[in-house]
Amino acid sequence: MKKVEAYIQHQYLPRVINSLEEMPGFPGFSVLEVLGHGCGPETDDGYIQTEQNLTVHRRTLVQVVAEEALVGEIVRRIRAAVHTGNVGDGIIVVSPVDGVIRIRTGESFPSSALNAGTP
Amino acid sequence: MKKVEAYIQHQYLPRVINSLEEMPGFPGFSVLEVLGHGCGPETDDGYIQTEQNLTVHRRTLVQVVAEEALVGEIVRRIRAAVHTGNVGDGIIVVSPVDGVIRIRTGESFPSSALNAGTP
Amino acid sequence: MKKVEAYIQHQYLPRVINSLEEMPGFPGFSVLEVLGHGCGPETDDGYIQTEQNLTVHRRTLVQVVAEEALVGEIVRRIRAAVHTGNVGDGIIVVSPVDGVIRIRTGESFPSSALNAGTP
Repeated sequence: MKKVEAYIQHQYLPRVINSLEEMPGFPGFSVLEVLGHGCGPETDDGYIQTEQNLTVHRRTLVQVVAEEALVGEIVRRIRAAVHTGNVGDGIIVVSPVDGVIRIRTGESFPSSALNAGTP
Repeated sequence: MKKVEAYIQHQYLPRVINSLEEMPGFPGFSVLEVLGHGCGPETDDGYIQTEQNLTVHRRTLVQVVAEEALVGEIVRRIRAAVHTGNVGDGIIVVSPVDGVIRIRTGESFPSSALNAGTP
Repeated sequence: MKKVEAYIQHQYLPRVINSLEEMPGFPGFSVLEVLGHGCGPETDDGYIQTEQNLTVHRRTLVQVVAEEALVGEIVRRIRAAVHTGNVGDGIIVVSPVDGVIRIRTGESFPSSALNAGTP
């Protein structure tokens, strides 16, 4: 299992979600609002000034936990949905996951990873 | 060290926290509000419509970073606290962590993982 | 590549960001607001009571994804910026990352990690 985390521009979130949900077996997603910026001199006008005088962008973090076999397709769909070619397009981070437990059933993925016990 | 991340229904957060805090050696937690949904057709009435016309659930993300020996018990307690048997119960994700530095003391766990230096 | 996540007191965020941005090659950051608390009896007066009667602290989560060679310096700078010696100073968590894709260019780091495809 892998975690895919995309830091994107907020306005493209519906395109990302719509594209991901068309994937067979798409496992669901979470969305968080974050502040930050990337490594370069982002020249667009999307900067905000926080109460602490930090100059940052609003970004949206989309998290997906999925089987490794789906990661390439998830990354391609996210990138196609948000790519403009301009600085500020964001990044996608892929990280290892030991296992996922579905709370309703107690199933774990991969099945060997964890013993979730009986609720 | 491992990171345990539970995506749960908001109303069960106090039960989760109370149960975790009864554990000897429980290392603390963080809570974030997220939007999202799982893989299935969640039929409860907890959907909201965002300003971008996304149909999502409010979910609560509970993060715990703990020694590997505690992970089974943490997963069991979270699951027991939030399990209803209905779609929408959420998931628990367990991920690897290289190391944790306690800022106050500079200690790292495991002790070999990182050299945090002197502040 | 590694992910560095620091759970710190909100008021030190500008010091952390200013110190990190002075690093050559600093790759950018994200900031999230979280609730939680650590393992000890935190005796400062920063507790809040949530609507659910949980007694928690407001904390700020700073995320940086960086090359492994930068992690020691990032950890030292964060710690130097927020260290008070009091309970509640927070923790820094370092986790493995398989790869990062820059959405604008399609480059992945490390270059072997992922094939992001053509947008």
